[in-house]
Amino acid sequence: MGKKARTAITPTREENFPEWYQQVIKSADMAENSPVRGCMIIKPYGYALWENMQQVFDGMIKKLDVKNAYFPLLIPLNFIAKEADHIDGFAKECAVVTHHRLEANDDGKLVPAGELEEPYVIRPTSETIIGDSMARWVQSYRDLPMKLNQWCNVMRWEMRTRLFLRTSEFLWQEGHNCFATAEEARADALLMQETYREFVEDYLALPVITGEKTEDERFPGADATFTIEAMMQDGKALQAGTSHDLGQNFSKSSGIKFQAQDGSEQHAYTTSWGISTRLIGGMIMTHGDDDGMRMPPRVAPYQVTIIPVVKGDTDETKLFAYADDIAMQMRANGVRVEVDKTAESTPNKMWGCIKKGVPLRVEVGAREMDAGEVTHVRRDLGRDSKETCSVSDLVGKVQTILDDIQDNMYNQAKAFLDNRIFEKSSLAEMREFFAKGEVGYCKIDSALWGTDEFNAVCDEFSLTPRCMPLADGGQKVLVGKAY
Amino acid sequence: MGKKARTAITPTREENFPEWYQQVIKSADMAENSPVRGCMIIKPYGYALWENMQQVFDGMIKKLDVKNAYFPLLIPLNFIAKEADHIDGFAKECAVVTHHRLEANDDGKLVPAGELEEPYVIRPTSETIIGDSMARWVQSYRDLPMKLNQWCNVMRWEMRTRLFLRTSEFLWQEGHNCFATAEEARADALLMQETYREFVEDYLALPVITGEKTEDERFPGADATFTIEAMMQDGKALQAGTSHDLGQNFSKSSGIKFQAQDGSEQHAYTTSWGISTRLIGGMIMTHGDDDGMRMPPRVAPYQVTIIPVVKGDTDETKLFAYADDIAMQMRANGVRVEVDKTAESTPNKMWGCIKKGVPLRVEVGAREMDAGEVTHVRRDLGRDSKETCSVSDLVGKVQTILDDIQDNMYNQAKAFLDNRIFEKSSLAEMREFFAKGEVGYCKIDSALWGTDEFNAVCDEFSLTPRCMPLADGGQKVLVGKAY
Repeated sequence: MGKKARTAITPTREENFPEWYQQVIKSADMAENSPVRGCMIIKPYGYALWENMQQVFDGMIKKLDVKNAYFPLLIPLNFIAKEADHIDGFAKECAVVTHHRLEANDDGKLVPAGELEEPYVIRPTSETIIGDSMARWVQSYRDLPMKLNQWCNVMRWEMRTRLFLRTSEFLWQEGHNCFATAEEARADALLMQETYREFVEDYLALPVITGEKTEDERFPGADATFTIEAMMQDGKALQAGTSHDLGQNFSKSSGIKFQAQDGSEQHAYTTSWGISTRLIGGMIMTHGDDDGMRMPPRVAPYQVTIIPVVKGDTDETKLFAYADDIAMQMRANGVRVEVDKTAESTPNKMWGCIKKGVPLRVEVGAREMDAGEVTHVRRDLGRDSKETCSVSDLVGKVQTILDDIQDNMYNQAKAFLDNRIFEKSSLAEMREFFAKGEVGYCKIDSALWGTDEFNAVCDEFSLTPRCMPLADGGQKVLVGKAY
Repeated sequence: MGKKARTAITPTREENFPEWYQQVIKSADMAENSPVRGCMIIKPYGYALWENMQQVFDGMIKKLDVKNAYFPLLIPLNFIAKEADHIDGFAKECAVVTHHRLEANDDGKLVPAGELEEPYVIRPTSETIIGDSMARWVQSYRDLPMKLNQWCNVMRWEMRTRLFLRTSEFLWQEGHNCFATAEEARADALLMQETYREFVEDYLALPVITGEKTEDERFPGADATFTIEAMMQDGKALQAGTSHDLGQNFSKSSGIKFQAQDGSEQHAYTTSWGISTRLIGGMIMTHGDDDGMRMPPRVAPYQVTIIPVVKGDTDETKLFAYADDIAMQMRANGVRVEVDKTAESTPNKMWGCIKKGVPLRVEVGAREMDAGEVTHVRRDLGRDSKETCSVSDLVGKVQTILDDIQDNMYNQAKAFLDNRIFEKSSLAEMREFFAKGEVGYCKIDSALWGTDEFNAVCDEFSLTPRCMPLADGGQKVLVGKAY
């Protein structure tokens, strides 16, 4: 008892990080496994987070003149086979549609019928099918740049799955841009990486390292892959978003050609870039604590939960009205507020709020109501931040408090990341670091990458090169364990 | 020549309505057929319309306490087989996933590999998979009502497809609500029908008849299906949205049980309700004219397009800045404005704007700039509405103009609908109406429905009972051709 009884999540992070992760998701009611192999159900609280993330990021890309569109779910086999590296990368994990109806067999059992002449795969990503459209839509240099994006589901048949982090079906956005020159495509891949960095750092409070993937870690068919890498609390990396400079690989396999200003016919240069519901897993493993989830205020489903504390002779109707009025005042300032009027007990409501990671919890009882006051507690600081003030005081400063929570969460995660990157001057030193079970990444000279010794250490400790940080001008490689 | 040369769309509605429809979509650049059988590509201009529709309707259902979530794309065969009517309704048009990877055969050709023990179908609708979750989530009367919705893609393998109206894959929302009593479920099905009516009439300017489907036209597995039926300009009906009272059919097949307040265990009552990208087809066939699309202002991708009219010695930079400034002033009032700075000629820009159906076209040339004026033309009224006024005048009244366009479009469509419903006292009269090739619906006494003579007339002219209008208390049936 004692220490353990004081955490809402069992086990704690230290006891069993993977199991703690599952329990946080369950306690916050964000998602669960489905009866379909490897596919998850995103529950309303998890989906509300995703909606907020979508809204913010969608606004960011629209400012960059990206247009949303929608392309077919199914991809003809001959499309996906067009780019050799691409098919190598995705063939092993495709859901394949082979029939178009069901029919009862002699035993009355439903079986597939109506075999298709050519099977389709459910999109694992859409470079090939969007490339086919671009080949028709891009005719002249005047049609460029063309920037398209779709928010959709994709499917990769994963054998070992984990909620949000790795599921057979997941939700994402995939951007596909097309340019007249190699320089523009490279600049765009870097711009989208920077847009991802801004999004995850400023809104999700996830500090990241921006870098380029080593060639063995590139997207299948890319000339270069740029990544943002976050560090989880167990020291493992999470690839949080990637943007690919595809050069002319896909424009050649898809036939995306245009007439240049000088009249010549040229192949275009394309990029693609994506972030997914996997980011939610990254937020949980970065921000969660032993009491559950902590939602970054800027994308939290609710930024504030007001709990009316009903005791023996409290006038519930009056107290609910008091809470509703406070909620209304905050909502008028654009704050997302929920009033918890469920039949749960007050402790259950409070713990529910903590486990869901609502940034600010507000409690109002008869005493507060009579005094025109509220009591509020920050999720990031816990009970020590408990404070009672007037309603107007809180309404006036709630946005400032939320901003401060956001900053605090980012700074905590940033300090963690910065403190767990270790420069190592040799592979022996790197080996020693991981042999000791240290938490974090090693940074080594990029000349050491790819040697037999490098590969041996990576194999021994299940390490992968995470990226060559942009800040080091490609001279260094970060190495670590990863999700 | 002559008359024909004056319409932007060839053929006209009168000449060939189905082909006119395809040409309107093409001219407005809204969608196109894809290389995947029966699947469409929704292009940016069409998708922007869908996004606006989603945003409005999503706001409406959130006010009704509906929570968005996300369920798997794939449905196990044994799930879909649970409800007998349901499987009868959907088995003939399911995309079936049977394998989970690709592999090169001896000829180097990619073929499906990794056969699944149990195949999956791509969801044609999600009653069964959501029902499975509800069975776990609903335990007590306190968990009810539960109202869930998802925005997603679904697939029904259609043999004859048409952009937006009937495609193998389409986008939609599907709501799934669950209640403790039959009365609540019935009231909910009617509430969602009414919400659809409000959405399509007030935002899409589509007048509809609200009614109940006759039993042969019900959703497979429903006790009652409520519908909103719109009338296209060729007099055919379009089912624009449906809500189903599923009674206990799906709660029994999925095992959605709860402990009632009296301690007894009971099966819940469910509803489901959906609208889709098909509505876009309905908007085109209701509002389009021989010059192309007409977008209802409340959901139009752009409500206003400003065309800078550049002539010989016009200072283009200055004129663009003038146009941008006007756009900015309107945007500050929440108006969606585009400034057309493309390299197209002025006539091409003007006709492009007309074909895309932008509600208000604003033209500014050197003369307007010098006078601080603008010239504007309404899409619904055409050149007769051309007017020149000061910038501040237009900025002040643009919202009123847009509202007036919205009302005018609705009223036009409403007059069309109201004038083309004909009460017939016998099936002989109904037969005569359709034999003459008249445009519209016949309304007959519901006692005539389902008789041999009724079925014979329906077969002869490809008619279907559209609905029993709520306004007639179920005593009448509307009959017509339909999309």
